[in-house]
Amino acid sequence: MTSLLTRPSSPAVTSAPPHRLRFGVMGYGYWGPNLARNVASCEQAVLIGIADLSAARLVAARSSHPLSVLTTDHRELLQDPSLDAVIVATPPETHRDLVIEALESGKHVLVEKPLATSTRDAEEMVRVARACDRALMVDHTFLFTGAVKKMKQYFVAGEVGEVYYYDSTRINLGLFQHEANVIWDLAPHDISIMLYLLGQPVRKVSAIGASHVDTNVENIAYITLQFDTPLLAHFHVNWLAPAKVRRTIIGGSKKMLVYDDAELDDKLRVYDSGAQLAASREAMYRTFVEYRTGDVLIPKLEKGEALAVEMKHFVNVIRGLEAPISGGELGIEVVRVIEAAQRSLRNAGAAVEVEA
Amino acid sequence: MTSLLTRPSSPAVTSAPPHRLRFGVMGYGYWGPNLARNVASCEQAVLIGIADLSAARLVAARSSHPLSVLTTDHRELLQDPSLDAVIVATPPETHRDLVIEALESGKHVLVEKPLATSTRDAEEMVRVARACDRALMVDHTFLFTGAVKKMKQYFVAGEVGEVYYYDSTRINLGLFQHEANVIWDLAPHDISIMLYLLGQPVRKVSAIGASHVDTNVENIAYITLQFDTPLLAHFHVNWLAPAKVRRTIIGGSKKMLVYDDAELDDKLRVYDSGAQLAASREAMYRTFVEYRTGDVLIPKLEKGEALAVEMKHFVNVIRGLEAPISGGELGIEVVRVIEAAQRSLRNAGAAVEVEA
Amino acid sequence: MTSLLTRPSSPAVTSAPPHRLRFGVMGYGYWGPNLARNVASCEQAVLIGIADLSAARLVAARSSHPLSVLTTDHRELLQDPSLDAVIVATPPETHRDLVIEALESGKHVLVEKPLATSTRDAEEMVRVARACDRALMVDHTFLFTGAVKKMKQYFVAGEVGEVYYYDSTRINLGLFQHEANVIWDLAPHDISIMLYLLGQPVRKVSAIGASHVDTNVENIAYITLQFDTPLLAHFHVNWLAPAKVRRTIIGGSKKMLVYDDAELDDKLRVYDSGAQLAASREAMYRTFVEYRTGDVLIPKLEKGEALAVEMKHFVNVIRGLEAPISGGELGIEVVRVIEAAQRSLRNAGAAVEVEA
Amino acid sequence: MTSLLTRPSSPAVTSAPPHRLRFGVMGYGYWGPNLARNVASCEQAVLIGIADLSAARLVAARSSHPLSVLTTDHRELLQDPSLDAVIVATPPETHRDLVIEALESGKHVLVEKPLATSTRDAEEMVRVARACDRALMVDHTFLFTGAVKKMKQYFVAGEVGEVYYYDSTRINLGLFQHEANVIWDLAPHDISIMLYLLGQPVRKVSAIGASHVDTNVENIAYITLQFDTPLLAHFHVNWLAPAKVRRTIIGGSKKMLVYDDAELDDKLRVYDSGAQLAASREAMYRTFVEYRTGDVLIPKLEKGEALAVEMKHFVNVIRGLEAPISGGELGIEVVRVIEAAQRSLRNAGAAVEVEA
Repeated sequence: MTSLLTRPSSPAVTSAPPHRLRFGVMGYGYWGPNLARNVASCEQAVLIGIADLSAARLVAARSSHPLSVLTTDHRELLQDPSLDAVIVATPPETHRDLVIEALESGKHVLVEKPLATSTRDAEEMVRVARACDRALMVDHTFLFTGAVKKMKQYFVAGEVGEVYYYDSTRINLGLFQHEANVIWDLAPHDISIMLYLLGQPVRKVSAIGASHVDTNVENIAYITLQFDTPLLAHFHVNWLAPAKVRRTIIGGSKKMLVYDDAELDDKLRVYDSGAQLAASREAMYRTFVEYRTGDVLIPKLEKGEALAVEMKHFVNVIRGLEAPISGGELGIEVVRVIEAAQRSLRNAGAAVEVEA
Repeated sequence: MTSLLTRPSSPAVTSAPPHRLRFGVMGYGYWGPNLARNVASCEQAVLIGIADLSAARLVAARSSHPLSVLTTDHRELLQDPSLDAVIVATPPETHRDLVIEALESGKHVLVEKPLATSTRDAEEMVRVARACDRALMVDHTFLFTGAVKKMKQYFVAGEVGEVYYYDSTRINLGLFQHEANVIWDLAPHDISIMLYLLGQPVRKVSAIGASHVDTNVENIAYITLQFDTPLLAHFHVNWLAPAKVRRTIIGGSKKMLVYDDAELDDKLRVYDSGAQLAASREAMYRTFVEYRTGDVLIPKLEKGEALAVEMKHFVNVIRGLEAPISGGELGIEVVRVIEAAQRSLRNAGAAVEVEA
Repeated sequence: MTSLLTRPSSPAVTSAPPHRLRFGVMGYGYWGPNLARNVASCEQAVLIGIADLSAARLVAARSSHPLSVLTTDHRELLQDPSLDAVIVATPPETHRDLVIEALESGKHVLVEKPLATSTRDAEEMVRVARACDRALMVDHTFLFTGAVKKMKQYFVAGEVGEVYYYDSTRINLGLFQHEANVIWDLAPHDISIMLYLLGQPVRKVSAIGASHVDTNVENIAYITLQFDTPLLAHFHVNWLAPAKVRRTIIGGSKKMLVYDDAELDDKLRVYDSGAQLAASREAMYRTFVEYRTGDVLIPKLEKGEALAVEMKHFVNVIRGLEAPISGGELGIEVVRVIEAAQRSLRNAGAAVEVEA
Repeated sequence: MTSLLTRPSSPAVTSAPPHRLRFGVMGYGYWGPNLARNVASCEQAVLIGIADLSAARLVAARSSHPLSVLTTDHRELLQDPSLDAVIVATPPETHRDLVIEALESGKHVLVEKPLATSTRDAEEMVRVARACDRALMVDHTFLFTGAVKKMKQYFVAGEVGEVYYYDSTRINLGLFQHEANVIWDLAPHDISIMLYLLGQPVRKVSAIGASHVDTNVENIAYITLQFDTPLLAHFHVNWLAPAKVRRTIIGGSKKMLVYDDAELDDKLRVYDSGAQLAASREAMYRTFVEYRTGDVLIPKLEKGEALAVEMKHFVNVIRGLEAPISGGELGIEVVRVIEAAQRSLRNAGAAVEVEA
């Protein structure tokens, strides 16, 4: 009787083939396990080690992954000269220091969103990445979903036309946090998607919210963005909603898109509804415009877990094969908008300029 | 061979039995036919006549109703001493004059929403109604739906608890108008429902909108209301949405309600989701609160067309049997909030006080 | 002051213009009012009279329609030489006699489904219609909906390919009847749609059902049809379902259609899913075929009440401008299939041949 | 610098604590990885080894699990005296031999559905399990979902009343197989759920199907079951459907249940709809029964992956703490019904007796 393989610690396991990048994960809390799992299943990467302050979490990590390094001291990872990159999934307030330390240790970095808790920090991180010539990517996961990729194609092809409005709702019963309000928690998802799709600079931000549980932490907020065009963007984020809603409606002069991430299969609907509006303004008045004026298409979307797609992209960015989709610059812009929203929130909803 | 009835103009048809109220309809455009049809099918009323400036519309009215009076001059209706009440379904800017004329002619009045185009006009109309001792009701139709009636029961019974937020979306591809923007067109529905359910005075209003078709007429707007409590109310109205959405989410400390008027059958969902939030604030932090923490109930709703229910209620109000659900006072409040929203809109979204 | 029109019985109302066909309705129970309303609103027809055995129903008819004839004796309608056509909406067991009487009185006939309660009767009615040279149409209303018309276009254009299966579910909490079981009540809708779309002769029918309320009247049944091809057609009809389901799935080699009549807007979905099945049989084995292999299209459908479309079609059939979509021959086929289903039902579900 | 744990092969990892059962998995194809993952994350079990004929699959297993044994020879697992149980996830035709070999090696067995490909084999396997005093469970996964557990509670509490019908639809674009038709592939899920919920012996089975791809392998089938009561059970299974439907409707005299496994959150709906049917049979006739006669409840369901719940249950069955929910007897009944369906299928849909 022969055994194919009986010892998991055989050299074949722990030493990655030369073409695989060697990754470490820092932070193994809520999101870290998902990142670690996707590194482990990425064909171009190998997961070498995990660092977390909690020994209990490391024990959990051990049962899921055959690892060389499990440590409560992240420096043990950073000092490993064979490590190519680290994924930072620690609390946002730690991002600045940890990411800069990793970059200066020569590691490429993929960091959990938001990039930082202030625009100043975010800009500094990007400067360090450039100085060290290392890749710095932000884990804006939704940019790697089939739905957002398909929407981007419509925008790139000019099929949406002039964008009239961008309306986003992301609400559910969620995790309450001490340090961050619902805007910091949820809005980065939608702000990053919007910036990616539209590519227009935000000029003014107003935000209004309310705190029903903790007087200092808003659990519901509405954010409105203004641009150089009549485009109006609006975001509803809410931790206290009874049902999960994750819907974005994009009204364009040519097509309208409805992106419903809570749908299992039909996440994106494309409405042939805008064209006639542009034709003649007078014709519309006193005319009852039908609910839907054309066909609706539910396009086939690329399958696959977004994190897996993102991990492959990160590998390609490190190797210089692709430009980063969610690089440091996009990360800065997201933080800049969120920061402006915070200022408006503290100022009773008054519109504030986005500082360049 | 015998015929039960061969001549529709026999006296039995045109002279109503003494217990039936005699109604006239002024305005037979978009909404008037629905009102006329519901008068015709109301057992306590009889439809006597219809007035409209358009002869073509009167011809259409004639084929649907056996009527005594069809006229392009509304005074022909008002001068009929046998007429008990009129229903005014003309454009909003004509409401003030027509309603006052009808009241002073001794007729009870049910008028299409909004009651008037200014708070001042609305208040004057209510004063005249009182002076003339006539009933004045506004056709806020949604207050007579099974869903809103059921929600009102939950509020009256105290089952919602403290109200945290009221979030309403009413969007579709709709009728563009010259005279009124999307706020005047759509928001009265939701403002009236909210005022009816909550019964709290609105203190501040902010509104932001955009015009994509006509530079002077907003086709999308977001309105935020503030109260004496931390309650936040928010309304999204939009004429340029690809799909019809009519959803209101009410977050309470005890229960949360989702009212989706675009659903055919399950218009109201009641979530047992708020209780544990009130229990202990600390417990919630760093705890992943599940999407839904209890059962969801889809209560059976009263069937029947809202307008039929409203017509019966109007008859009972005229007869002094019921207090008006959507009387002139509620109508004034709706106009007051809309008017404040207009001021905020012209002021770049700055929060404005609601003038008492 | 002038009045446009004060007397509904003026000659202009009761004498139709020469180009309008004069219609009578026989039977004003559950469905008759809908038919009468659609005659009244049809521009090419005028509703002259209604006959029903119940005086109470005639009173109801009177309040909705300005009519010349209201009678408990249908012969009063048939003897009116000015009448062009009658619509028969009486119970199925009366269809044979009433329709033959109407045809022999020289009237064109539109009769409620099913055409008759036996194939023999149905065939006789069609023979009489031919002998009298009168139009005989069956009110298979669904054939006149936008969804069915669109599906027919796909079939006519050959875009569905070879039809593999036709699966129909029509269930709800419905009206229980003494005289007819759920098959006679509901299946004619789906059988007529299927025959219209596929145009293939049914060869064998098997049906199984159960009676839970009345031992002689089935309230649930499953019907399976076989053809000369491997096509399998299956129908689930049910009066005791908690929710309304009206869904048909048509699996073709090129496209698959899902027709959901309980949807408000998206009644038809067209799946690009069949093509690859035809390509290579071997490739499919041991391959996980994805849930959806292509885009889904929700085509824009013609709006408008089906009965209004049908009424206009009936007028055109009478005038010789169109061939009947739901003529007597289709009506016979529907009855033939239902009759065979009844035989199978009485024979414990054994497959029975459809008698030509 | 200290490392919490640097060597994954340290004794603490490979030697399970005394209270953990030691499991092996045989078969690492489509379903095996899910089973292995759930063993690995089960607190009462430890995954020792995996056997599969394919070396490539073993390499995949290695990257996901720190394992002692990875082998292409399943006997290597069975000969390990420290192993408590094996999970068999090999093709159905191999179940009989592998399961019996495992039981006779003293291992408890959890085997993929169906238990066997013939009733005779299934009965033999159960006999061997009894003789060896080992637990034998079938992986009828759905019995361990929150929805089915909740439905079982309603049945146990007598809240459904007399069951009128059980209607199940399980269709999608699925994996075509050479060896088994769609009945063998999909129906065991629904047959097992039905047997578990109803606990009534099936008396007659009829089945009709069609083959559109491979002439010997049906890809669509309809199965009807009859019982000693008027209960009618019906199953639609289909590999060629454009959309995934997984819905069961259970019509009872007291309540009706709709179990929709394709829903993300609201998988179970409980309708208060049956009561009045029992009250008076006459009242229903000629009465339009409303679509829904009472409230609908969407009960909160237990969360958690069904396989994780099942694994914990299997551990408790082995330890004698719980009676098996999906034991060998249920497994036999499922095979017995499927086998009868096959006979009917080969006999043109004629109803066949279920052989006791």
